[in-house]
Amino acid sequence: MVATPKPVSSVEFWYEFASTYSYLSAMRIEAAAAEAGVAITWRPFLLGPIFAGQGWTTSPFNLYPAKGRYMWRDMERSAAAAGLPFRRPDPFPQNTLLAARLALIGAQEGWVAPFSRAVYTAEFGEGRDVSKAETLVPLLDGLGLAGQQLVARARADEAIKNRLKIVTEDAQRHGIFGAPSFVTADGELFWGNDRLDEALAWAAGTHDGASARR
Amino acid sequence: MVATPKPVSSVEFWYEFASTYSYLSAMRIEAAAAEAGVAITWRPFLLGPIFAGQGWTTSPFNLYPAKGRYMWRDMERSAAAAGLPFRRPDPFPQNTLLAARLALIGAQEGWVAPFSRAVYTAEFGEGRDVSKAETLVPLLDGLGLAGQQLVARARADEAIKNRLKIVTEDAQRHGIFGAPSFVTADGELFWGNDRLDEALAWAAGTHDGASARR
Repeated sequence: MVATPKPVSSVEFWYEFASTYSYLSAMRIEAAAAEAGVAITWRPFLLGPIFAGQGWTTSPFNLYPAKGRYMWRDMERSAAAAGLPFRRPDPFPQNTLLAARLALIGAQEGWVAPFSRAVYTAEFGEGRDVSKAETLVPLLDGLGLAGQQLVARARADEAIKNRLKIVTEDAQRHGIFGAPSFVTADGELFWGNDRLDEALAWAAGTHDGASARR
Repeated sequence: MVATPKPVSSVEFWYEFASTYSYLSAMRIEAAAAEAGVAITWRPFLLGPIFAGQGWTTSPFNLYPAKGRYMWRDMERSAAAAGLPFRRPDPFPQNTLLAARLALIGAQEGWVAPFSRAVYTAEFGEGRDVSKAETLVPLLDGLGLAGQQLVARARADEAIKNRLKIVTEDAQRHGIFGAPSFVTADGELFWGNDRLDEALAWAAGTHDGASARR
């Protein structure tokens, strides 16, 4: 008899490059998923269109000053607790259209995870402007990729532009309204870096809330 | 030599009776605080005036439907994981003015914690309407208090009404914008049931983010 390998559960990691708490998740998700025995699919998307649908023209952390002040302090504490550098980028939020398009190419070509971590480190670890090709090209080159060519493709390729629109609609179908979000294969949505471990436990079938399964 | 007892750190627990996630914190905070060696001060307040200051006329979970749908599902899961009953009250949010005034009397007289737990259990464990005196009087009576008299006092006593206004201003001075919130003696603000353990660890001096101390 041949043993059938247990199928690996998976979790979709939905993130927006402008999102501070997505930075915390991006830097720890692979290790946490490996420990839980869960596979991760990286799903870059844009929050802008979703926020616009709620009548917001910028980040809620800018719209609601008390919430914004709290978030920056909380990020400072949370990054320190995670052993991560943290520096507030200016402006906030950053325009992440180019980075998101590049990440979608990376998802097709297998380098989305290291690219995304590099973007987050530049943006929130070093406070750099990741809206600019000048920032992104060296990050891509540093991963052994052809940075200039990829940026040119991200700017021109209609298929990539369309894919980003479809991805954002897909996010809305999942009920996503913020980032980071985690979606399990059975459609459970978890929102926020604080819910990463619950999402992994849900996917692995080891969570405490078994009676809440639909 | 006489050993000087170590001073006990304390955390203020700011909660609103209409807040779903405050229910989760109220039911576990005393055990968690005892384990951390931290004292808790129960600080009932009203979110309504704070939300109104942000231009909101109701709960953000009603204003933003995707966020609301998520919250109810997340509460279902979180309550199940905590072993707590959960039932959605109608209407939501509840008018919590009378309950908050009663809790302020309880804070003066030493029964604020059991009263608050009883209100939350009625509201979110049993889905009952806690805006009404008919609901609150038996809860008070069940604690061995004079329910009818306390409700009459909560409705008439100008000092209690004024105290609630001062408390809400105090919340805003702390930078509070949601509930539950936790404030340490050195002024650190933590927001959300997910931050209760960090708040206690901060107060006890056992947290991981020591380098983030101001």
